[in-house]
Formats: sequence, C-alpha cells, structure tokens
Amino acid sequence: MRRLVALLFLVAVAPARAQIGTLLPVPTTVTPGPGRLVLDTTFRVAITKFTDDRLRRGVERAILRFEERTALEVARSVAPPTASATLRVVVDGAGDRVQSIDENESYGLEVTESGATLSAPTVVGALRGLETLLQLITSDATTRYLPAVTIRDTPRFRWRGLLVDVGRHFMPVEQVKKTIDGMAMVKLNVLHWHLSEDQGFRVESKRFPKLHQLGSDGEYYTQAELRDVVAYARDRGIRVVPEFDMPGHSTAWLVGYPQYATRRPPNGIRRAWGGADAIFDPTKEATYTFIDQFIGEMVRIFPDAYWHIGGDEVEDKHWNGNPRIVRWRRARGMRTNEELQAYFNQRLMRILRKHDRQMVGWDEILHPKVPPQTVIQSWRGTNYLRDAAKGGFNTILSAPYYLDHIKPATDFYLADPIPTTTDLTIEEQRHVLGGEACMWSEFVSYETTDSRLWPRLGAVAERLWSPQSVTDVPDMYRRLDVLAGRLEAHGFRVQSHSARMLRKLFPSGELAPLESLLTVAQPPHFGQALNGRQTTQLHPLARIVDAARPDPPARWLTERLVRQFVTNTADNISHDSLTTLMQRWRALAPTIRALAGETVAIGEAVPVADALERTSTIGLEAMQYVRSGTRPDSTWLAAAAADLKRFEQPQGLLRVSVVPEIRKLVALLQGVVQ
Amino acid sequence: MRRLVALLFLVAVAPARAQIGTLLPVPTTVTPGPGRLVLDTTFRVAITKFTDDRLRRGVERAILRFEERTALEVARSVAPPTASATLRVVVDGAGDRVQSIDENESYGLEVTESGATLSAPTVVGALRGLETLLQLITSDATTRYLPAVTIRDTPRFRWRGLLVDVGRHFMPVEQVKKTIDGMAMVKLNVLHWHLSEDQGFRVESKRFPKLHQLGSDGEYYTQAELRDVVAYARDRGIRVVPEFDMPGHSTAWLVGYPQYATRRPPNGIRRAWGGADAIFDPTKEATYTFIDQFIGEMVRIFPDAYWHIGGDEVEDKHWNGNPRIVRWRRARGMRTNEELQAYFNQRLMRILRKHDRQMVGWDEILHPKVPPQTVIQSWRGTNYLRDAAKGGFNTILSAPYYLDHIKPATDFYLADPIPTTTDLTIEEQRHVLGGEACMWSEFVSYETTDSRLWPRLGAVAERLWSPQSVTDVPDMYRRLDVLAGRLEAHGFRVQSHSARMLRKLFPSGELAPLESLLTVAQPPHFGQALNGRQTTQLHPLARIVDAARPDPPARWLTERLVRQFVTNTADNISHDSLTTLMQRWRALAPTIRALAGETVAIGEAVPVADALERTSTIGLEAMQYVRSGTRPDSTWLAAAAADLKRFEQPQGLLRVSVVPEIRKLVALLQGVVQ
Repeated sequence: MRRLVALLFLVAVAPARAQIGTLLPVPTTVTPGPGRLVLDTTFRVAITKFTDDRLRRGVERAILRFEERTALEVARSVAPPTASATLRVVVDGAGDRVQSIDENESYGLEVTESGATLSAPTVVGALRGLETLLQLITSDATTRYLPAVTIRDTPRFRWRGLLVDVGRHFMPVEQVKKTIDGMAMVKLNVLHWHLSEDQGFRVESKRFPKLHQLGSDGEYYTQAELRDVVAYARDRGIRVVPEFDMPGHSTAWLVGYPQYATRRPPNGIRRAWGGADAIFDPTKEATYTFIDQFIGEMVRIFPDAYWHIGGDEVEDKHWNGNPRIVRWRRARGMRTNEELQAYFNQRLMRILRKHDRQMVGWDEILHPKVPPQTVIQSWRGTNYLRDAAKGGFNTILSAPYYLDHIKPATDFYLADPIPTTTDLTIEEQRHVLGGEACMWSEFVSYETTDSRLWPRLGAVAERLWSPQSVTDVPDMYRRLDVLAGRLEAHGFRVQSHSARMLRKLFPSGELAPLESLLTVAQPPHFGQALNGRQTTQLHPLARIVDAARPDPPARWLTERLVRQFVTNTADNISHDSLTTLMQRWRALAPTIRALAGETVAIGEAVPVADALERTSTIGLEAMQYVRSGTRPDSTWLAAAAADLKRFEQPQGLLRVSVVPEIRKLVALLQGVVQ
Repeated sequence: MRRLVALLFLVAVAPARAQIGTLLPVPTTVTPGPGRLVLDTTFRVAITKFTDDRLRRGVERAILRFEERTALEVARSVAPPTASATLRVVVDGAGDRVQSIDENESYGLEVTESGATLSAPTVVGALRGLETLLQLITSDATTRYLPAVTIRDTPRFRWRGLLVDVGRHFMPVEQVKKTIDGMAMVKLNVLHWHLSEDQGFRVESKRFPKLHQLGSDGEYYTQAELRDVVAYARDRGIRVVPEFDMPGHSTAWLVGYPQYATRRPPNGIRRAWGGADAIFDPTKEATYTFIDQFIGEMVRIFPDAYWHIGGDEVEDKHWNGNPRIVRWRRARGMRTNEELQAYFNQRLMRILRKHDRQMVGWDEILHPKVPPQTVIQSWRGTNYLRDAAKGGFNTILSAPYYLDHIKPATDFYLADPIPTTTDLTIEEQRHVLGGEACMWSEFVSYETTDSRLWPRLGAVAERLWSPQSVTDVPDMYRRLDVLAGRLEAHGFRVQSHSARMLRKLFPSGELAPLESLLTVAQPPHFGQALNGRQTTQLHPLARIVDAARPDPPARWLTERLVRQFVTNTADNISHDSLTTLMQRWRALAPTIRALAGETVAIGEAVPVADALERTSTIGLEAMQYVRSGTRPDSTWLAAAAADLKRFEQPQGLLRVSVVPEIRKLVALLQGVVQ
C-alpha cells in the first residue's frame, strides 16, 4: 500500500521540480539564477562581520547537518573572517538581548556558482537563513549542489507559535528539545509551554515545593532543565512563553496549596478530562501573595517579556459553590463571575507589571475592565480575534489551529489570521501579532506527539511566515511530504510512527495489513464519540488509535484523484488509480478480521476495516454506474447515503478518512440520476 | 519485499507456538501448566515479603510496561503486602549492596489460573523474573492472558556483558540508558563502558580537567551524568565496569597531559582509526601519581569491584621510539616491552588494590608477572581464554562476540565459552566467568548503534544465560524476530533503522527499492576493503552502508529455504519461494540504477545491486539446471564461481549477504555435473 501511494504520488507530480520548490515555508521572494554551487569536501563557512557564541553555535550545528545531508566530511569549525569560504555569513549584530516580538528575523541568501552569502541584520535572521540553505541542498547523479538563487525573506507575522500541553501528559526534556528543533526547521518562533493543568503541575518550585511534589506524579521539570530548555530555544531563535493557567485548570496546583482554592481537591490530581475539581479563590489576599511570590520565582527562569495566565474555561459552579466567594463578590457590586474574573485578571496584571511582564490570556479574559496591554489569544473562534483587534488589544489566532482536532492540513493552511476579506482597518490589523498551533494532549503522549504535530504543523508555519498569496494546497501537500522525510531523517517518528506503535500491539508478525489500514483510517475528531477510548490521564495510549495518524497519506491522494475524476469522468488515470486503491482497501477487511481472531488488540481495528470495505464498495460501484451511464435504483442510493453518513462517525476507535471523497463520487451519480 | 519476507516467514513457522516459546533467553526449566491467567483491569501487584526502593521502582516500571503491552488501565502503585493481588512478588532480601559477580540472579515464576507468584532470593533475581513475565503476556481474539507455567531460572554464567565504545564515537546519555534497558530485557548484567580512546576521553575530571576539555571535542559525560547512569543500571540489575584504556589507546588523555606521554600527540585528538599517536610513559613516577589520583577520583563514581585497564594493542614503536624509555627498561634488566608492560600493570594493580578494585584487562596483559587476581578478557582468540583459565586467572570471553564484525547471529549463538569439547578441568572451568559482546564504534554512531546491536545481541545474551543444550538456530532466529519487535515497540530502531537512515540520503521519494535491497545487502566485514568508506572519526556516518543492517532478514530466510531445497530438490515450497525472492532481487538493479541517475547518494548502492542481480541470476539458473537435470557447461560454472568469489568482497560499500547460500545451489549442480 505504501508503495502504491508513493508510486501514484510520483506519477502525479512528475516532472520533479527543482529543490527550490521544496522550500517550506515559501520565502518572500525567490529568484532562480544561472548555474549551481557545487558542494564537496572543500565546503567551508566563514562569519565575516559580527559574531557571537550563539551565531557560532548555530553555524556549527548547520555544518553538522550539512554533513548528515551530504555525507561529505568537511571542516566543522567556522573559518576565520578573512578566509576564503564557500558560504559567507554576514550579520550586522546580535539582535535583542532577550528575543522580542520585534526581533528582526529577515535574511537574504544569494547562491552563485562561485559561492553563497547569507546576510541578516540579526543572529536570529541568520538562523532562519541557515534553515533555508539546508533545505536547498540537492544532487544529481554525480554532484551535490545548491541551485543558484537569490532569496529575500521576512516573516509575515511576528508571533508564530506552537503550544505544547505537558500538563495532561508529560513530555520529557529530550522530546521538548526535539520539538524545538522541528519548530526551527519551519521557522516558528514561540514555544508556548502549557506547564500547569488539572492533571499536572510540571515545574519545580523551590518556594512552593508542594506544587511539584504533590501535583506532578513525579513528572516535572527541574529548574535546571527549564533553564536548559530556554537556552536551547534561544539558541534556535525561539522564545519560550510559559503558561500557568489561572484561575481554572488549576486542580494540580491546589492539591498542595488548598488554602488558595475554592475547596480542597477531593481526589488529589484530577485524572478525568474536562472541568476542574477546584479553582483559585480570587477573594483572598493570600491568593495574590502566593501568585506574586510564585511568579517572582519563575521570572528568573523565563526571561520572555510575555507571560500567559491562561484564564480559560472558568466554570461558574466553582465560585458559585462557595457562599463566602458569592457574598464577597456581591458585596463589591460585581454582578457576574466574568466581572470577578476581570478583577482577578487586573490583580494578575498588577503582579505581572511589577515583574516586568506583559500578560497573555485566552479569549475569555476579553472584558472591558482588562487592561489594554493584554494580549488576547483567540481559541473559541476567529471572531474573538476580530473583537480583540477592534478593541485595541494585541491578539493571536489559535481557533483554527488545533492540531488535536485531527483535521487535514488543508484546513490549517487556508485559515488566514487576516483573510483578504477582513473588515479590520490597517491599524487594527497591526494588532494581529500572528498565530499559534495548539497541541492539547488529552490523547497525546510523548511517544505519539511527533505524529500528531507533523507534518501538519508545517502548514501552520507556512501560513504564518509566507506571503498571503501562497495558498496552493496541492503544492503544500507535496512539500509537507518532503518535510516529513526531513523530519524522519532527524529521528522524528512521522512516517514511521504507525509501524512502531503497531509493534506495541503485537511485537511479532506481519504489520502490512494494519499499516495499510492506517494510511486511510484516522483518529476521531476531537469531540466525536470515544467508543471506549481513553477518558482519563491514566489510560495507556497504546491502542490502534494511537498508532493511527491524522490526515493519513491516502486521504489527500484520494481527494486529488477524485477531483481529477469528477472534472473528467473519462479520465483513465484517476479512474484506474482510484479503482486500484479501493480494491486494495476492500481486500483489507477479511485479512484484518482473520488477524483479529488471533489478537484482541487487532479486534479494535475491525469496525473501521469493515467500514472501509463498505466505503470502497460504494466508491467502486459509483464509478461503474458513472462510467456505464446506468442509473442506480433508489435503494442503492439510500443505502450508500446512510452508510456514508454513518461513517462520518468513528467506527470503533477510528474513522475512514476518505468518506467525503467517496461522497463526491456518489454525488456525481446523483447528477446522472437527476 | 518486506511483506514477502514476512509472509514466507509466517508460512514456515506456522502453526504459531505458545507465547512460552518466545521467551528469550530460554529459562533453565519451563513446565507448562493447565489453563491460563486472564489479564484485565483488576491486575494488581503486591510485594509480600522483603521490599526496598529498588524493588518497588522495578515493579512500577514493569506495571507501566504491562500497560503498554496490554493497553489495560491498571493500578500503577504496588498493593499492600496483605492485599489480594494478581501477581505476588516474594523476595528474600536486597542482595549485594554493590552488585557483585556472585549476586544471586535466580528466580522462580509460577502462573496458574488464579494468580502468579514471582519468587527470588534477591531484588536482582526479581528484576530478571519480571522481564520473563512481561515476555509471557499474550492474547487470543478476546482475552489477554498469561499461560499457566512454572519456571525455574538461573543464569549459566555470572558475567554477561556488553562493551560499548563511546570513545571513537560518543553516545549520548539517553542512548546509553536505552541500551541498558535493552540489556535488561535479555538479562545481561554488565555494561562495560569503554570511556577513553585515542579518539576521545569521555569523562569529566575535576582533578584533571584538561582530560575532558582537550580530549573530547566537548562530547563527554559530566560526573552527575555518570552517577545517574550507574544508578540507572543498578536499578536494572546491571553492573557498570568502566574501562580507561592504558597504556595504549590513550592519545586523547595525553593531549591535555603530555608530560605523562611518550611524546606530545602531534595533532591533538587522533582522528584516524588504528594505532595511537602517543601512549603513556611507564618509566616516570609522575605517571603513576597521575593515574592514582585519577582513579581515586573515579572510584567515587564507579562503585563496581572491577576496573578495566585496557592494556591492548601496545605498539612497540612508542616505547622504542623514546631513547630514555629504552635506556630505563634496559637498566632494569627488562628485555622486552611485554616485560615493561607487565611492570606497568603491576604498578596499576597496586594502585587498584589501594582503591579496593580488582583489575580486568585485555588478553595482551596475560604475562607470568601479572598478579593472579587479574581478570583476563579474551579478544584475540578463544585460546587466550583457555590459557588464562589454565593459568588460574578468572577470564571472560569476547573473541567470538564482536558485533562490529557484522557476522550473522548464528556465529555468536554457537560460540560457547565452555564448549562441550573443552579440555578445561571442572576447577579451571570455574575461572570462566562468562562473556561480553563488544560493540566497537569505528563505524557506529549513536544513530546506528541500535541496528548494530540488535537483535543479534540477544543471541549472545541467550548463550550466556541459558542452558548449554539450548542451541536450536532456527528457533533462535524465530525468537530474535520477536525480540526485534519488542525493541521496536520500545522505541529502538531495529527493523525501522534502514528506512529512517535512507531518509537522510533522500528526504523525499520512494524508499521501497532501497529498503528491499537492504533486506539482503549488508555492511562489509570488519577488515574488508573500505572502498571509500569512512576512515576517520570525522567522517559523517550517513551513507548507504550506515542504513544497512548486519545479518539482514533475507539472509536467514534464504539459508533456511536453500537448506530445504538442497535436502529435497523436488520440494516446491522452497523452490518457488527462492525463485520469487531471486526474481525480485534481480528486478531491483534496473530500478536502483535509474534512481542513481537522480541522486548521487544512491549511486553508492549500484555496485551491490548489480552484484545482487548477477547473484540472483546464478541462483535461478542453478535451480533450473538442477530441476531439469541439465548439465551446465564449464564456462557457466567457471563464471558463476568467479563471480560468487568476487561477491564475497564488498561491491562498493555493501556486500550481498546470500552469496554462501547461492554457492550451495551451485554446489548442488556440481554434484549433477560430477
């Protein structure tokens, strides 16, 4: 199956485009030049103007990756400024002492037959350019080379982030660093580190040790590790914005410090998803003293100018359930809990200002009484982004970028923070800082995170970096596939995820039928029926659904082929390719049913295999009807429609990713009928 | 191709054996019982007798792995001793404060329909038993269970080690820990950590900081990391024996401390393999003071009773090349450098005795003047093991266990430290402590090490643990395949190694033809022509040879099929399977030649693809001749013999693994001819 997918892919994109065409994100301007720069063991890099340790380390890392990519043994150290060099790095200055949202990340790259020059106003700009340069390396039958090209590049948005939720499922330091490496490859610049949740408090506090001692099951980052990650990110031009979610999503804090809570969390750390067991009590002065002291400890670790307070999903029941809090609120003339939260946020703002930090929060905190310097992160809908910008707040878009919602890359790619149809004024548009992809981890462990992030995160990264006009979806999928390969080479588990996780289910025996199934079956949408799937933090993420991948490769392939067939039903390439695909899918079900007779873990794949069998049958028959011009009877049509409707929902733990495409084939037929 | 391999494999071993049959290493006695113990979410473990933190941690890790294996959400904490539990762990005591070679590692495991009991005299024994228990987990279509069984198990040898060479290529801490995890899975008990080499000194010394500052390229373990690894290993019942190689293989030490050297290393750290640039000067008292102080610092980190001094490959030229050393030696009546090294070793022994350590060294140190408490590690040949044992030395076998020699698992498996034909007396046999597999790292990076170690290391582990009578090679391969899957599930890169490394060569495009090639082509033997392969430490290990695996899966498959066919040339299963295999191999060459026309890195695969094409043609034609009873002419025979002779050597960077098998087919034919 994998071979088939790859083969069809090759046929469809041939002839191969130049390496320039695999850049991701697409630079602002790219001007191909004549000829190429041959790469051999004489390759040498010189830093010819400003330098510092960060730049030198960045160049040395790039040289090691150059070696990995080319297998050429080259000089690993940076050449003296005056030496002749293949690549000259010309940087004007260090840039911000602490990387700011206004850090200049632009660069220029010029490759000619005689050498390459990377110019940038800052070290961060140079780091971005080095990533581009590494992506340009290519070869023919005899020679490794860089194509001659002139690139000018600057990001469209200043804030291009990824949220990782280490609260619900912990992520070891090595995995965090690896994720930072991947972010740097696609030019993201903010790691939004969601460090506390109802399910876990992940940071060592020396001031309040019960936070990590009682709130983390022993899974937390030491302060040395936190500093190490911040330095690691800075070395790659990535800011680290910590989030300590308040006043809700805070059960794990309050296990150790119930004196600041609406009530003592009755079961310790909360294991179930959704809803806190206790939240902060905003009426006590001691709460603010505690928060002040905690933040005072943490700002010494996190130097970024921004500080995320969370502020989302504060359920009324917590404050309403405590008569003292209700009395306190009423006594101060606050009519709603929103007003009480705005009061809480004003107090937080004062604390943060004292510690020289700017406040970021989820869009619930948008309230007339919230200070205007606050940054609003839209998650409930793009309208909050619009409202915030119109209200004069700086704002970040996340609503369409929830990676855990298991949507195809297309959806992320086409969600523009400032669409061409925007009604924001130019001034208001300046308030849109950018966006952040969110990787909430209810159903994600450190072992599955690569496959949930990548390659789809590349689509978000490009949306936030590249010019607005870059919107070619087929070209995006082509380049995401290259990105997946690059990540795989670096040790990420993207393409190889399914096989590895399937080995947990059955260490020996033939994986091919299930690997094939997982090229077309995917996890449910967030919010779809769980059908027995893990509903607490303690459920092991080692089932067939955890081996599956979002937006699996056959989905896009099918979408493309169906589009081709629908456009021209006489087209044989798309007809024959679709036929082959669906025949193979249909043939999987009996095999998987037989395997399920041996191993209970495989039984969980049977419902979706059955659904795929039926979906394929519908697709094949629909194409036959179309081709023969025969009219199916209404029974056939009704059954097909009902089954496809049903297959929008998960069948067991998985759902068939191509249902919408097969529906397009049936719709063709309804055209015939009418 | 992978599918074909797997399919044939399944056909050949069907019907599936019970899970008991996948245990590796095979226990001393296994008695299946009636029925099975059903596993569900009520699974609970109690420690009912002695307990300590190490045992508790070991049980908790086993529970997490139980969860991963079964996807059952179970209680993660250990139940109170009196609670009813599915598994009772009954341990008599903690065992040695520092694990010794006499630590009792035995255990008993009894599984019945009503529960399981693991009994062991020590915590280490219990850890061994937990690994067995995890391997027993199985399922049918509806139920996960343990088969009822009674196991008594105790290792045959006390010293079952793995040497990892982090001097030539560094291995990050995480990879060391992962390797320790794997060792524990197959019940190995010694990590022999080769920490210094001509190419790198890998340990932080606070006393002599230039050792790591000038000797490591910044790639070394801090003392905190070393302590962490030692504790990690102890938690898994594994001793850590450090090796600091002296007086040779010591260039990297002497870069920072040339005052103790025969000469100042002229080029700093040595990059080329083979031979030092400088070695220790054994004639200076200051040398011994230095070594004494260094060892004094290190014994606080490495608590093991044994200390490896290296002592191998001391080239005459170093001491002979320094007239002062020659004069000194002669003045003391020593006629040879061997005597001088024996003097050096006596001095080391005195230092080690002062620090309460026993000396281990490579077999060159075997000399009448070496104190009898010394442990001799045989690497140049099994005769040194015999000589050492007859000389009254304790001794360890490594000569046949060099994993970097890229031999098939069979060779490791059948090399017995005390073969049935031994002429050692019972008393002398007691001196054979066991053996160690060696993973020298000239051509191994931390990224390729999994694939070089596994699954072949499992064969050595079983040889050293299981009864001498366990020698069924086909059964070993069957179980090594299960082991590979288990390791893959734990995140090791065994089966998935080739695809991942191939992605370094070409991030996008179709991998299948090269993956197929690497199921049958393998790296050269150690010592075979390098043909342009990496000859220094600085050469990037990112070429086609680094994507290949030793003893690739099609080799054993072919050996088995050829044996079947040779036994009965009328057998159609082996005939048809071999035909299919060889036809596919033959078809690879044109594809790979075409791909090589696009990418220079693939060009390096062409010579071996051509050789495989020709080898397959010879094999196919030989089978046709055999089947038809036709006599090939002498030209055909001469050409086949010449080509197969040539293909014993690497073709380009790789060699065809099945040449000996195809030769057997041709030999059949010579039978026909004669």
